[in-house]
Amino acid sequence: MIQMTLIQIDNYGPWTVTPTPRRESDLQILQAELYADLQRQFAAKQGLVFFMRFDNMLAISNGMDMEDHLRIQESIGNRYPITVSMGVGTARTPYDAQRKATKALQSHGGAQSEDRKEVLAIDSLADENGFVQIAHIDINGITETLTDTMPAYDTSFVVNRVQHFLMKKLIKKGSLLFFIGGDNFMSPCNGLAPEGLLKIINEKDEIKIALKAGIGKASTAEKAANLADLALEEIRGGFTYDLVHLMKE
Amino acid sequence: MIQMTLIQIDNYGPWTVTPTPRRESDLQILQAELYADLQRQFAAKQGLVFFMRFDNMLAISNGMDMEDHLRIQESIGNRYPITVSMGVGTARTPYDAQRKATKALQSHGGAQSEDRKEVLAIDSLADENGFVQIAHIDINGITETLTDTMPAYDTSFVVNRVQHFLMKKLIKKGSLLFFIGGDNFMSPCNGLAPEGLLKIINEKDEIKIALKAGIGKASTAEKAANLADLALEEIRGGFTYDLVHLMKE
Amino acid sequence: MIQMTLIQIDNYGPWTVTPTPRRESDLQILQAELYADLQRQFAAKQGLVFFMRFDNMLAISNGMDMEDHLRIQESIGNRYPITVSMGVGTARTPYDAQRKATKALQSHGGAQSEDRKEVLAIDSLADENGFVQIAHIDINGITETLTDTMPAYDTSFVVNRVQHFLMKKLIKKGSLLFFIGGDNFMSPCNGLAPEGLLKIINEKDEIKIALKAGIGKASTAEKAANLADLALEEIRGGFTYDLVHLMKE
Amino acid sequence: MIQMTLIQIDNYGPWTVTPTPRRESDLQILQAELYADLQRQFAAKQGLVFFMRFDNMLAISNGMDMEDHLRIQESIGNRYPITVSMGVGTARTPYDAQRKATKALQSHGGAQSEDRKEVLAIDSLADENGFVQIAHIDINGITETLTDTMPAYDTSFVVNRVQHFLMKKLIKKGSLLFFIGGDNFMSPCNGLAPEGLLKIINEKDEIKIALKAGIGKASTAEKAANLADLALEEIRGGFTYDLVHLMKE
Repeated sequence: MIQMTLIQIDNYGPWTVTPTPRRESDLQILQAELYADLQRQFAAKQGLVFFMRFDNMLAISNGMDMEDHLRIQESIGNRYPITVSMGVGTARTPYDAQRKATKALQSHGGAQSEDRKEVLAIDSLADENGFVQIAHIDINGITETLTDTMPAYDTSFVVNRVQHFLMKKLIKKGSLLFFIGGDNFMSPCNGLAPEGLLKIINEKDEIKIALKAGIGKASTAEKAANLADLALEEIRGGFTYDLVHLMKE
Repeated sequence: MIQMTLIQIDNYGPWTVTPTPRRESDLQILQAELYADLQRQFAAKQGLVFFMRFDNMLAISNGMDMEDHLRIQESIGNRYPITVSMGVGTARTPYDAQRKATKALQSHGGAQSEDRKEVLAIDSLADENGFVQIAHIDINGITETLTDTMPAYDTSFVVNRVQHFLMKKLIKKGSLLFFIGGDNFMSPCNGLAPEGLLKIINEKDEIKIALKAGIGKASTAEKAANLADLALEEIRGGFTYDLVHLMKE
Repeated sequence: MIQMTLIQIDNYGPWTVTPTPRRESDLQILQAELYADLQRQFAAKQGLVFFMRFDNMLAISNGMDMEDHLRIQESIGNRYPITVSMGVGTARTPYDAQRKATKALQSHGGAQSEDRKEVLAIDSLADENGFVQIAHIDINGITETLTDTMPAYDTSFVVNRVQHFLMKKLIKKGSLLFFIGGDNFMSPCNGLAPEGLLKIINEKDEIKIALKAGIGKASTAEKAANLADLALEEIRGGFTYDLVHLMKE
Repeated sequence: MIQMTLIQIDNYGPWTVTPTPRRESDLQILQAELYADLQRQFAAKQGLVFFMRFDNMLAISNGMDMEDHLRIQESIGNRYPITVSMGVGTARTPYDAQRKATKALQSHGGAQSEDRKEVLAIDSLADENGFVQIAHIDINGITETLTDTMPAYDTSFVVNRVQHFLMKKLIKKGSLLFFIGGDNFMSPCNGLAPEGLLKIINEKDEIKIALKAGIGKASTAEKAANLADLALEEIRGGFTYDLVHLMKE
C-alpha cells in the first residue's frame, strides 16, 4: 500500500489577482519556494513531493502520520501569505491513493472556497506493511543528441512529448508520472511489474526516443527513490543489459 | 525584437550522481531555489524566467545587458554548489531568439563539458526598439469542472494535454509556451497576431478544453506580463466577449 | 542533561576571499539562508538553532542522534558551496555542553584546516532523562519607550547593551544567551533556578532597562521554547506579578 | 551625503503571538529569509542591508529612488505573511541619516500601529554627489587564538564585547557598527577620518583584542564595501603596515 498526500493552496487563484494581478515573478518565486520548503519538510520524514501544478502538489508520504502533516501545515501558515490544505489516501496503486486523497479533501469544500482553510482530511494511512515503488526514467544520451545540438526549446519540447506519452501509458496501470527536471521522470508505480514498464518504454514507434528506467522498492519514498537511482546507475554503467532494472531494500 | 537568455547549469548531470546519486529531495530543493533565485534577480531588471527543464531555463531579458548577466552569474557562483552558463540571442520571434541564444552557448562547449564554466555567450542584444509580447493563457472554469470534482492527478493530466497541444501549435508560429502553475501558461509570442492565437485556442476538437488568453505588449517582460494579466482579467470580468484580448503599454 | 551541537562552516574565512573578496551581499544571503535551512532541519526534530556568529552556530539538539546529524550535513553539502562540521556535547549546563561539543570538534582539526571537512564529532548524547530549560527574556514596553521615539540605531544600541549585560551575568551561571530579534533573547539555562534569573534581571542599576522572562522546561528545545513563550505571555497578560515565570511540560 | 533606509516589519510583535505564540523556529526562519530576500533586492541596486534587530533593519541605499523602494515593498507583501514599512533619510553622517529615516517613518504611526501598513516615508534622497564610506573591521588572528582553542560560546562572547566597544566609540563620531558574521563588522562611517578610526581601534586597553580595518569610499554601498574588503586584504597580505587602510573608487 502506498500513501499519498495531496497538498492544495487554499483559495489561491483569487488571491493571485486580488486586488489586481500580482507581479508574475513574485508568484513564481512564491510557488517555487513553497515547493522547496514542503520538499524539505517532507524529506525530514523520508517523504517526497512532486510539484505537479504547484498550487496542487502530490507527495508520497508513507511513514508520516497526522501529527507530521499538521506540523507542516502550521509551519507554512506561519511563514507564507497563503495556507495549505491536505488530503491523505492509501491504496494498492498510486493512482488510487491520490484519488482517495483528493476525494477526502474535496469533501471539505472546493479549492476556491473562502471557508475551507488549513484542512487536513485523512482517508487512510499506510501501516507498517506499506511500501513504495518508484521508477526513475530518463532519456538515453540526451546531452549528445539534443541538448548540445538542438535549440533549447526544441529539447524541452521533446521532453514534454515523452512526458505526455508516459503519462498516457502509465495511468492505465495505476501509475503516476512526474517530471523532475532535465530529462528525468519519476513514476510512483506500486503494482506495476518491471516487465510492464519495459513494454511501455519499448513502444518506441510513438515517440522515437530511447528510454531506460531504474526501479526502487522500499519502505519509504526516500529509500525507494535512492534505490531507483542506483538501479539506473547500474544500467548507465553497463552492469545490466536490461532497460528496466529493479532494486529492493 | 525579443531578447532571450538561455541559462544552463554547468555539467549538472554528472554532478548529480557523483560520487553516488545525491538525495532526490536535495536536488529538487536545489533546482527550485535556483529557479526562484534567478527569477528574483532577473525580476530586479524587469526580466522573466521560465523554469523549462530546471537545468536549462529560458528568460526574456529585454533591457538587460552584459553587465547584468555577469552579476547574476557571479552571485549564483557565490552561493550554490554549481555554476551557470548563459547564452543570449535576439530575434523577431521568441523561437529564433532562443535558437540563437542556444547556438551561441553551444559554440563554447557542451552542457556536460568539464572545461566550460560560467560562460556568457552573447549573440545579440535587443536595442531600444525591442519589445516583448506575452500571452497569458488559462483554462475556463477549471476549479469547478476539474479541480473540485476529479482526482488531482487527472486534472494535472488534462493540463499537460493542453500544454502539449499548445506547444505543438505555437512553435509553428515561432512562439514558445511555458507552464507557470495551476491552469496557467505563458507564451512569449512576438510576431503572432491575436487572430492567430484565437484560431489556435478555437481548435477545441483536439483537446475539448475551453481556453482564453490575455496578451500584453510592452518594452519589458514584466510590463508585458502585467498587461497580459490585466487583459485576462477583462475577459474574466466580462468586459470583452473576445477569448483573446490584447493590451499595449 | 542538555545536548548542544556546534555547527561550523568548514574553512569558511579563506573561501570568502578566494580568489578575491566575494560580494558582501552574497555572503550575507548565503549565511542567512544557511541558518534558515539548518533551523528548518533541526526543527523537524524539535531542535533549535541560534545563529551566534553565523559561521559558528549553536543548537540545542536533545532527541537527535548521529543519523539525524549526518543527514543534515549531507543535505547542506548537496546544496551549498560550503560544507559544515559538527560537534555534539551533553552536560548539566548549556555552557559545559557547548564546551564539550567544541572540544570534540577541535580535536579533529582547526576551523580553517584544509583537511577537515564534514566531520561529525560526538562527545556525548543526552539520554531519555535529558531535558531542556530555556528562558525567553524581553524588554518591557520597548515599542513605546524606544522603537517609536528614538532613532532606530539607538534602540538597537540599547538592545545590544542589554545583551552584553545578560551574557556577562549568565555565563557565570553556566547559562548562554542569544539574541533572537526585536527585543528578544533566549537563554538555554539548565541548572539555573528562576530565583537566580530574577536576581539578574533585577540588577537594573547597571542597564536601567526593565526586563521580564518566561522559562520553559521540557524534553525538547521546541517544547521548552514554546512553554517559555506561554510563560512570558502570562506575565504580559498580568496573570502573574512575577517578572520571571516558569512553566513545565 | 549617505542615504539610509530603515525597514520595519509592520505590527510584527503582536503578530508573533496571535492567536498564540508562533513556533520559535518558524519565526527565526521567517526573519532570516526576509533579511536574505531584502538583501538580494537591495543588492540588485547596489545597496546593502544590515539585519540589526531583524524586525528593524538598516540599509545603505545611495542610488535608489522611490520607485526602487516601492517595488521591494510590493514584492515582500506578495510573498510573506507580513508587510514592511520604510523610512529614508540622507545626511553627512550615517547616524544622522538613520535618525532622519526613523523620524520620517515614526511620523506615520508606531511600529505596532494597526493602521500603519506598507508606508514609504522619504525624508530625503542623496543626489549624485552622495557617497558611501564603509569600514570593514575584523579581529586579528581570531581562528588561531580563539575559534580553535576556546569554547565556541566564549569566542562569541569576545566578539560581542568587541562589538559593544566599537558601537560605543563609533556612535560618538556619527558612525554606525553592524556585526556581519564571524569576526567581522561593517561600519558605515561617512565623516570619520581614517585617523579617527585608527585611534579607536588602538584603544586596546579596554578590550585587549587587536583589530584592523579596511575602508572603502565610493558612489554606492556595494562598491564601498568591495573596496573596504580589498583594503583589508592588503593589510592581511602585508602590503601595508597600517592597521587602517583606505581605498577610493
